[in-house]
Amino acid sequence: MKKGCPYGTHRVIEPIGVLPQTAVKIDNSMEIYDNEILIDVKTLNIDSASFTQIEEQAGGDEAKIAEIMMGIVRDRGKHQNPVTGSGGMLIGVIEKIGPALEGKIDLKVGDKIATLVSLSLTPLRIDKILNIKKDIDQVDIEGKAILFESGIYAKLPSDMPEKLALAALDVAGAPAQTAKLVKPGDYVLILGAAGKSGMLCCYEAKKRAGVTGKVIGFVRAGKEAERLKQTGFCDIVIEGDATQPVDVLNKVLEATGGRYVDISINVVNVPNTEMASILPVRDDGTVYLFSMATSFTKAALGAEGVGKDVNMIIGNGYTKGHAEITLQVLRENETLRKIFEEVYA
Amino acid sequence: MKKGCPYGTHRVIEPIGVLPQTAVKIDNSMEIYDNEILIDVKTLNIDSASFTQIEEQAGGDEAKIAEIMMGIVRDRGKHQNPVTGSGGMLIGVIEKIGPALEGKIDLKVGDKIATLVSLSLTPLRIDKILNIKKDIDQVDIEGKAILFESGIYAKLPSDMPEKLALAALDVAGAPAQTAKLVKPGDYVLILGAAGKSGMLCCYEAKKRAGVTGKVIGFVRAGKEAERLKQTGFCDIVIEGDATQPVDVLNKVLEATGGRYVDISINVVNVPNTEMASILPVRDDGTVYLFSMATSFTKAALGAEGVGKDVNMIIGNGYTKGHAEITLQVLRENETLRKIFEEVYA
Repeated sequence: MKKGCPYGTHRVIEPIGVLPQTAVKIDNSMEIYDNEILIDVKTLNIDSASFTQIEEQAGGDEAKIAEIMMGIVRDRGKHQNPVTGSGGMLIGVIEKIGPALEGKIDLKVGDKIATLVSLSLTPLRIDKILNIKKDIDQVDIEGKAILFESGIYAKLPSDMPEKLALAALDVAGAPAQTAKLVKPGDYVLILGAAGKSGMLCCYEAKKRAGVTGKVIGFVRAGKEAERLKQTGFCDIVIEGDATQPVDVLNKVLEATGGRYVDISINVVNVPNTEMASILPVRDDGTVYLFSMATSFTKAALGAEGVGKDVNMIIGNGYTKGHAEITLQVLRENETLRKIFEEVYA
Repeated sequence: MKKGCPYGTHRVIEPIGVLPQTAVKIDNSMEIYDNEILIDVKTLNIDSASFTQIEEQAGGDEAKIAEIMMGIVRDRGKHQNPVTGSGGMLIGVIEKIGPALEGKIDLKVGDKIATLVSLSLTPLRIDKILNIKKDIDQVDIEGKAILFESGIYAKLPSDMPEKLALAALDVAGAPAQTAKLVKPGDYVLILGAAGKSGMLCCYEAKKRAGVTGKVIGFVRAGKEAERLKQTGFCDIVIEGDATQPVDVLNKVLEATGGRYVDISINVVNVPNTEMASILPVRDDGTVYLFSMATSFTKAALGAEGVGKDVNMIIGNGYTKGHAEITLQVLRENETLRKIFEEVYA
């Protein structure tokens, strides 16, 4: 059996020397190396920015969505959207564990897991697309995938339905980072606050900012905004368009009585919302960019262009304990759990 | 006199609601609003990518270059290259200061400044093109420009040649951020250490990390690497290819005796160096991404993909005092000043 690199570089076909995520094409043959785990895939949970793009490209047609997805995996050996660069995650059952890992990890054949590394670096083979759930960005398939030694995962918890856990784990990074970032008394602006990731972030932000802080949820007008208001997670809910930065700034300042926020968290799933995240933040404040639709240059040059001395952080999908932190939110908050059950699971 | 928005949105013609940089067309009439500054422009310092494109389109012909430049400004009201999207900066003399700003800023009529915001958002009128210096991407003109209230600038220092100051101001953000970030005892990895920005960062990093810290410069083998070694700014200089992350990691660990670095600073000017910046950093360490070739998704998903809990920061071209910090480096270090005089000015 061949020996693999912990980061999976042994599967990179092009260009040589890079990591699987950067690679244009990786080897998705399903014969495992000594430190790999073979997964029998049940469900793909496509990243929201990616799914939105694919759905638009397909004009909403399911057969076309399936065709685009099969094409991506055929070309790249992984489900990395060539437009957004992003992936998603998967649920599956452990089918085989390489001998170099066996007994050293807390997994055994038959365990059901969710991978917490992106599909954009996961060797994947789709044999058949069974069911496309457009409302929750999930696709049931027949297929196989490989988890590398450095890959992170979560065993699905026994005290909640699988789809519920998956829906939360998919965005586990953002609320866990929010929990670490927000301090008592902070004013926190959350753009895209009514989305899945947004609501978890609002909940965590409120918990940490406390009674002396303020959580301001910015959302598009509509049903989701109403739902967010009913949760009570936000002190203020503002309705508007996050691609109109000056309008966002004015609305936020109006709501806070002229005070700039300490932290903005962007979990919007459309492009061109960088400046709306930057303008309302005070000098030396923090802009936390979690949307996969974020442009690095638009953020960097945009902040410079308006002379804003803010700390802009790239949302890292991983932080220690992120799966636990996020699942715990669903356990401790009945309102959120009900919404997740109704909408995402 | 009309009241303006600090960010210059009052000059946006198309599309409405965006900031001047995003706009396709802005108003370049030279009647100032109450919070604007009118500049008598002497020299445009065209962004290198933009100038190269214009020169190629013109087949190197100076009359054609002038024609293309006049056309850009006529169409857009600013010198934003429609192909590259980029701008540059300008040198000029303050001609008028709006009453809402007068006395509140450290500028007076007659001061000579360099704008530190991009030409891609600066209202500009070119009356005449006087001289095109193809070797340094500079164009002397007769014309006027507007600086918005939020626009940043630097007064040109009297103790060094204009071109030397410009060469340093062009990359002022990175060394100033380095100065703020690096603490005594830190191990700092600088990727692209022998470039203009890289050398300034190495110098600042060593000053801050002190004798208990270590500055590790990572560079491509060659003449520049030799020059960097001679400066003595780095404790260790490693030669290699920053697009090969696993190789970078191994070389860094070998050089430090197995210790991961606290901070990595990326000022490389080629794509696909995100992972080389992430892998060598310790848990909870900082990855500072200053290269405009950085991909947001490659960084975000890449760190998650290898389970790295690191703080990834988008290099903001602006931070308070960045021009002063950077010019000061040239004043206090003879070696660096000589290199800048020889190579960049």
